Amino acid sequence: MTNYTAMEALNAKAGTLSEALSILYWDQQSMMPSGGGPSRSDQTALLETMVHDITAGRALGEAIEAAEGDNALNPWQRANVEETKRSYIRATAIPSDLVAAKSKAESHALAIWQEARPNNDFAAALPALRDCFNLAKQAGQAIADKTGQPLYEAMIDGFEPGLTVAQIDAVFDDYAAFLPDFLDDVLAAQQARGEPLPLDGPFDIQTQRHVFQDIMKAVGFDFDHGRLDTSAHPFCGGTPADVRMTTRYRDEDFMDAMMGVLHETGHALYEQGLPKDYARQPVGLARGMVLHESQSLTIEMQVVRSRAFMNYAAPMLAKAFGKSGPAWTGENLSRHAARVERSFIRVEADEVTYPAHVILRYRLEKALLSGDLDLADLPAAWGDGLEALLGIRPKTDREGCLQDIHWYSGAFGYFPTYSLGAMCAAQVFNAARENLGDVEAQIERGEFAPLVQWLRDNVHGKASSGSTDEILTAATGSGLRADAFKAHLRKRYLDG
Amino acid sequence: MTNYTAMEALNAKAGTLSEALSILYWDQQSMMPSGGGPSRSDQTALLETMVHDITAGRALGEAIEAAEGDNALNPWQRANVEETKRSYIRATAIPSDLVAAKSKAESHALAIWQEARPNNDFAAALPALRDCFNLAKQAGQAIADKTGQPLYEAMIDGFEPGLTVAQIDAVFDDYAAFLPDFLDDVLAAQQARGEPLPLDGPFDIQTQRHVFQDIMKAVGFDFDHGRLDTSAHPFCGGTPADVRMTTRYRDEDFMDAMMGVLHETGHALYEQGLPKDYARQPVGLARGMVLHESQSLTIEMQVVRSRAFMNYAAPMLAKAFGKSGPAWTGENLSRHAARVERSFIRVEADEVTYPAHVILRYRLEKALLSGDLDLADLPAAWGDGLEALLGIRPKTDREGCLQDIHWYSGAFGYFPTYSLGAMCAAQVFNAARENLGDVEAQIERGEFAPLVQWLRDNVHGKASSGSTDEILTAATGSGLRADAFKAHLRKRYLDG
Repeated sequence: MTNYTAMEALNAKAGTLSEALSILYWDQQSMMPSGGGPSRSDQTALLETMVHDITAGRALGEAIEAAEGDNALNPWQRANVEETKRSYIRATAIPSDLVAAKSKAESHALAIWQEARPNNDFAAALPALRDCFNLAKQAGQAIADKTGQPLYEAMIDGFEPGLTVAQIDAVFDDYAAFLPDFLDDVLAAQQARGEPLPLDGPFDIQTQRHVFQDIMKAVGFDFDHGRLDTSAHPFCGGTPADVRMTTRYRDEDFMDAMMGVLHETGHALYEQGLPKDYARQPVGLARGMVLHESQSLTIEMQVVRSRAFMNYAAPMLAKAFGKSGPAWTGENLSRHAARVERSFIRVEADEVTYPAHVILRYRLEKALLSGDLDLADLPAAWGDGLEALLGIRPKTDREGCLQDIHWYSGAFGYFPTYSLGAMCAAQVFNAARENLGDVEAQIERGEFAPLVQWLRDNVHGKASSGSTDEILTAATGSGLRADAFKAHLRKRYLDG
Repeated sequence: MTNYTAMEALNAKAGTLSEALSILYWDQQSMMPSGGGPSRSDQTALLETMVHDITAGRALGEAIEAAEGDNALNPWQRANVEETKRSYIRATAIPSDLVAAKSKAESHALAIWQEARPNNDFAAALPALRDCFNLAKQAGQAIADKTGQPLYEAMIDGFEPGLTVAQIDAVFDDYAAFLPDFLDDVLAAQQARGEPLPLDGPFDIQTQRHVFQDIMKAVGFDFDHGRLDTSAHPFCGGTPADVRMTTRYRDEDFMDAMMGVLHETGHALYEQGLPKDYARQPVGLARGMVLHESQSLTIEMQVVRSRAFMNYAAPMLAKAFGKSGPAWTGENLSRHAARVERSFIRVEADEVTYPAHVILRYRLEKALLSGDLDLADLPAAWGDGLEALLGIRPKTDREGCLQDIHWYSGAFGYFPTYSLGAMCAAQVFNAARENLGDVEAQIERGEFAPLVQWLRDNVHGKASSGSTDEILTAATGSGLRADAFKAHLRKRYLDG
């Protein structure tokens, strides 16, 4: 066994256990009866410990060091050594008592938050949030001390490796300056067009499932390597060879579930398109949350919410639900799929206003970490920040700083990836269009294969062989910018 | 940590991994898309290895030895030490190269058998079967050398600990002597009664599932700790806290699926009734295949195929399927559920003739192991044996020695447990009747709780705290005999 293969074998073992964990987590969300909970927690805790014992173990550290001296490696293997080292440094940077304290504080804060949010009681959640924040900061600092990164970048790195504050500032400031006037124009244009015709249900849930599966298949989801099931909180889990997607249905509306399903389909296509030769190796994993979100949003925002897609899907949907008439045209459906509104809740926001919610959280995170803002002052800062970005101010914390689970589960540095993903999606789709000719016409004819193949060649198949910046630049000719996203929005909402 | 708790902790770790494996196996049979197969094999192989490393590891051996000297143990803990030691001795008796050779030969034989059976080509399967048999014998001998058991008993012990050839001979010889005249009488009586009225389908599969779930719930299956799904080969898997049952449906007939579901429900009740205080410990596991099969057959054969149960279920079934008329009485349904016929295929046999199929295989296994019979002569010996027991002779090996998967996957010593389970079920049900009064009347009223509670107190809750013989004697007043089974058959088929 060479030095490199010793490292590879340890990665493969941890990767195989992680795959088992993914299936158990999927089962827990979608299949497990309630009484299975306690024993399932024992099973996953044990497997998580076993994974950690490998990925943060002395044996892996020694194998990495030895593999670094191996001169016979190809570029992917070399990148694999670097990626393994990157995650090893992060895994070993945080002392185990801090890991334990962090995990305990997060469970506690989560439970507190679950009560505080419906009760609109930020004061009740504040002490637990403060613990969570302080421990996340300590863990971030421990990593920063090892890597030399600035604190916030060390924290962001856990979700999107290599992303810098300078990069984020550039695109977010650009968008924040663009938004106010643009939003006024969009809302005026929308009002001038009037309301779309209503889509009257109910929509049988079995029928929804069948037609969504047909669309997933058409778009390129491989059902030999994946499933679609139901869970309270939709997600895309499982493994690259066996993707487990979930959604939830409401019989009075199919549009939300359809968007959810196709959003997760975008994530699934990324996973299914990862290179099999490097399965279970860090270099063979999806790059990070920005590229991952860019793939879900390429499908959901660039493809599915377009007029072209709705022209394709309208007859299928009308037939499946037994509907007809002027409400069931591509034009009317696409107007339902692209409604813009100033609103308070991030997860319900449209693609135009969504970045404002993210930029707000990003700015607050920076201020909290620099010490310019204390957590106790979060509600006021939230109101001020949203008002500056969107011109509205929440009346309650439930509609403000209590709405998201992230901070109350220790996830600081995650939010930026959502909107960077949206911008990345526009940039990637634009590059695909330049390479593939009239993608819209292809979509309207239900020909998704050229686009998916292009994504596979330029994004999915690259896995973690380069940085996000390198992959994006190779695919689109530049690093991440807001330009393509703004152009996309102008075209869809003003010229459409 | 005391000596005992060190052993307990190792058992708990292996048990927790085994639970994860059970869920992954269930998923593989009932949920996994075909393309997930290769990576799933890697996942389960790794977890199996990890379980084996614990259950056959030096650390466990030392912990057992230390725990044996612990004088502060209660009887269950003491039994736990003994059970752990028993399985440790078995796990360590077989050299690892023999384990590997055996596993390889079994995979090979299985693949050969899957082709040879439809082709009716025993000659093609013979070399692989011979390898399987020789390696099973070697493994059995390795265990026998360690335990001092006779070879065949060492092999049987893997399925039903402590069962002896003398015990099996006594009940099987008794039944073999009883069967020929009894079967003539049953078939004559059945002919005199004429055919039952046909049950005309189709039976909607969703409806079947719903009504079966209602019956499972009524009988006592706890859906907070289990599920019912679909798979090609029905089984009862999962864990005691999260039982995963499967069945398969055909729309032209509901009776087979219903019997399958209630059979597996009997297995599930046993698992759900195991003592939670000893979860994941050898003493807390189900005793063996005889008691396990006795629980499935108590529900299927003693309860569900009875007139009393069908009087209870007939209105539910008729209502669910939208049927009425004289075919949908308890009397007519119970005649469908208790048809007797001389036939070749074990898995399709009724409860009267089923033991003949098992006794045949048991006698052949003994002859093969003693050297009195060579595998090459199996087809002829099969024909002679079945003719002696049932008066019929298969024309093809597909209907003879190629029909069962067991030997072609290395399972020698398993067959006896099926019919011993049936006899045990009759004996257990008889004891329950003596304790609970008119159980039939309770069943007819849909009151299953007293029976299930009695089984829980006398069988399920005992887990592996004593031998099968001890548990059965405590519950019924004697070790296993054929008497109660014969009495049950006489009552159902001649006096009914």
